[in-house]
Amino acid sequence: MLIVKKFGGTSVADKERIYNVARRCIEDYNKGNDVVVVLSAMGKYTDELIAMAQDINEKPPKREMDMLLSIGEQMSVALMGMAMNKLKIPAVSLNAFQVSMHTTSTHGNARLKRIDTERIRRELENRRIVIVTGFQGVNKYDDYTTLGRGGSDTTAVALAAALHADACEIYTDVDGIYTADPRKVKHARKLKEITYDEMLDLATLGAGVLHNRSVEMAKKYGVPLVVRSSLNNSEGTVVKEEVSVERMLISGVALDTDAVRIAVIGLKDVPGMAFRLFDILARRNINVDMILQSIGRSGTKDISFTVNQSDLDEAVAALEDSRARLGYKELHSERNIAKLSIVGAGMMSNPGVAAKMFESLYNENVNINMIATSEIRVTVIIQEKDGVRAMNAVHDAFDLSD
Amino acid sequence: MLIVKKFGGTSVADKERIYNVARRCIEDYNKGNDVVVVLSAMGKYTDELIAMAQDINEKPPKREMDMLLSIGEQMSVALMGMAMNKLKIPAVSLNAFQVSMHTTSTHGNARLKRIDTERIRRELENRRIVIVTGFQGVNKYDDYTTLGRGGSDTTAVALAAALHADACEIYTDVDGIYTADPRKVKHARKLKEITYDEMLDLATLGAGVLHNRSVEMAKKYGVPLVVRSSLNNSEGTVVKEEVSVERMLISGVALDTDAVRIAVIGLKDVPGMAFRLFDILARRNINVDMILQSIGRSGTKDISFTVNQSDLDEAVAALEDSRARLGYKELHSERNIAKLSIVGAGMMSNPGVAAKMFESLYNENVNINMIATSEIRVTVIIQEKDGVRAMNAVHDAFDLSD
Repeated sequence: MLIVKKFGGTSVADKERIYNVARRCIEDYNKGNDVVVVLSAMGKYTDELIAMAQDINEKPPKREMDMLLSIGEQMSVALMGMAMNKLKIPAVSLNAFQVSMHTTSTHGNARLKRIDTERIRRELENRRIVIVTGFQGVNKYDDYTTLGRGGSDTTAVALAAALHADACEIYTDVDGIYTADPRKVKHARKLKEITYDEMLDLATLGAGVLHNRSVEMAKKYGVPLVVRSSLNNSEGTVVKEEVSVERMLISGVALDTDAVRIAVIGLKDVPGMAFRLFDILARRNINVDMILQSIGRSGTKDISFTVNQSDLDEAVAALEDSRARLGYKELHSERNIAKLSIVGAGMMSNPGVAAKMFESLYNENVNINMIATSEIRVTVIIQEKDGVRAMNAVHDAFDLSD
Repeated sequence: MLIVKKFGGTSVADKERIYNVARRCIEDYNKGNDVVVVLSAMGKYTDELIAMAQDINEKPPKREMDMLLSIGEQMSVALMGMAMNKLKIPAVSLNAFQVSMHTTSTHGNARLKRIDTERIRRELENRRIVIVTGFQGVNKYDDYTTLGRGGSDTTAVALAAALHADACEIYTDVDGIYTADPRKVKHARKLKEITYDEMLDLATLGAGVLHNRSVEMAKKYGVPLVVRSSLNNSEGTVVKEEVSVERMLISGVALDTDAVRIAVIGLKDVPGMAFRLFDILARRNINVDMILQSIGRSGTKDISFTVNQSDLDEAVAALEDSRARLGYKELHSERNIAKLSIVGAGMMSNPGVAAKMFESLYNENVNINMIATSEIRVTVIIQEKDGVRAMNAVHDAFDLSD
C-alpha cells in the first residue's frame, strides 16, 4: 500500500511529538507500505513568522511573505528526517522545489496545478519514507507560493491523488469529525463516516477540521480521507463519496465565529450593481460567503455579505476606493457575528429540517440576521454572543448527542 | 556599476540592523548602480538551528542538516525584501534554488561549481535590488548543500565573479583587516590594502574576518574585495593582487585557538604510512593543517597534526576504527593549543623574520611546540594560555602598532 499521512502543526510542536509522529509512520513502513508524510510548520511557528514579518513591515509584500512562511514547513520536515534517521529508518525530506509542487502564481492563496511525482517515486523505490512540506508550492516564476488556510491538507490530498495512493490519512488534534465541536457541545458524537459533500459544507462552515479546498480535491479525484488523532489510536472518521450506514437526518452542527458582515447601504437600483461590487472583491481574491440583497429607501438597494475576518480590512478599503464608481451611501461592518449551520445529506428527503432549526433558535431567544440554504445545509447568521448556546440548542433538537 | 554587497549575521541580527543594511544598499541603488546583496542567517540563528537539530538527533544526517540550516538565510533575505519594500525600493529575495547555485554534492562543506545568472540579471534589468541567500547551494541531486564556514563570503565572491561585478564589498562587525585582532592587541592598526596571498594566510590562520575559500576564489577570478564595517562609514581594507604602498616587513599577526593537535604515536616505519593515515582523514573531508613527523622509539615513527576543533571527534573515531590497519601504539589529542602566525609579502626579501619572531617569544618565555613556514608566513603552535601574550609580544617586536 502507498499511504499519505498528513500531520498538522500541533502534532509536530515539540521533540516528543515529532518522535511520536515518526514512530507512527515507521509502524506503517515496517509493514511493508510506502509512506509519504506531509507536515505543517511546528506549533505556532507560522504565527511567529507572521509576527516577525509585521515587525519589519506591517504590510509585507505577499511574495516575500511566502518566501518567509515556506521556511516553517522546511524546518518540520528536516527535523522529522533527523528523528527517523535516529530511529534507524531511511527517510528524506523534500520541499516544494524538490518535489516539485507547481501552483498558480497568486501569493498567499495559490492553487496546486500539478505535482511532479518522479523524485518521490524514486525515493519510495529506494524504500525511504518521504517527508514533504505541506502548504507551500512553486509558481511559474520559480517563486514560493503558499496555499492559504488548510494548505497542508490540500498538499496531502493532491499528493495522494497524484501518487494514486491507497489511503490518505489526515491527523489532527481531534480524533475525527463530530456532530459538533466537542469543546463547545458537551455530548457531541464522533461520526464513523461522512460524505464529501457534507464535509465540504462542514469545512466551509467552520467545523475547523478539514479545509474545504482539500475536501473538494478529495471528491474530485475520489481520494478517500481518514481524519484521525495523532495522539491516540482511535479509528477516526472516513470521508468518502457514499456512506453506508443508516442516514441521520443531519450529520452535524457547525459554528463559525470567523466571519464578519459588511453592509453596503443605498446602492443605486440599476442592473449590474451587484456584479460590479463583487467583481471588485473577486479581483482581490476575497472570498464572499453569504449574500443578502434587500430594498433600501427611495429607490436604492442594500447588499450585505460575509467575508473572513482576515479579509475585512482589504474588502473595506477596496469598497471605499470604489465608492464613486459604486455610488453607495454608507458602508458598515460588523465583527460580532457567528454563522451557525446544520449539515446533512439526509435533509434532502426530509422537509421541515430548516423549520425545526428555526424553532429551536426561537425557543432559545436567538435572533436570526441572515439565512442561506443549500440542498444539504441550512446556515443562519446570529450574534456571536449567542453562538455556543444556539449550537447546543440545535444539537439537542436534532438528537445528535451520544 | 554592478555592486555585490555581503552582510554577515551580526549585521542583520535585528530589525534596526536590517533597516541599516537596507538603507546602505538603497544608497548605492539610488546612485544608479545595480545592487546584489548576499546575506547570512540572522545573528545566532544558525547556532539555534544546530541546537534544535541536536536536540532531535545528536548526530543528524548531514543532508537533513543542510535542509534545516538553509532556512536561516531564507529568513534573512525575505525580511530584507520586506524592509526594502517598506522603504519603497523594488527588491526581490532569491534562495539557492531560485538563483540557482550549483555546488558539489558534499553536505556541510560543498563547493560552488556554477551560478546561473539569468534570473539575477533579469531582476537587475527590472531595476530591482536582488537579495541572495549566502552559504547555501543545490547539488546535482536537487538537495540543499551548505558551503561550510565563511560560506556567505564565498557566495558573494562567486556571484561577483559570475556577474562580472565592479565591486565586491564584504561587510562585517570590524571595519577592515588589522595587523592583529584589535580585541586582543590594543594598538593593532588597520591596513589600507593587503594582497590576496597575505589575506589567504591570515584567513587560514584565524584572523577571522574572511574565510580562505572566498579569498582563493577572489584571487582566482581577480575580484577585488573591500572589507568594511556595516556599522560605520570608514573606508575598510582592499584585498587585491598587488598593493601599491611601501611594504611593511610583515602585515599582521594572527592567533587561532580553534585548532587541536592529534598525535599518533608508534607507527611502523614503513613507506606509505603517512599516506594511509591522511587518506583516511581526507575521505571524511577532514582538513589537516600542520603536520610534524618525528622518529619514535625502536624503529617506529610519530606523526602529529592539527585539525579544526569541530573535526576532532570524527578524526579520532576514524583513526580508532583504522587502528588495526595503521598499527600505531597510542593516540593522543590536545585541545589547549593555539596557532600564532605572522604574515607578510615583505618577508620574502628579508631573511631573519622567523628568527625575530622566535626571539620575541623566547623573551616572553613562550614555549614553541611545532613550527611551519611558507614564503610569506611563519606559524608556531604554542600553549593556548600563552596565546594573547605571545601575540602582543610579536606585534610589538615588528613595530606594527599605530
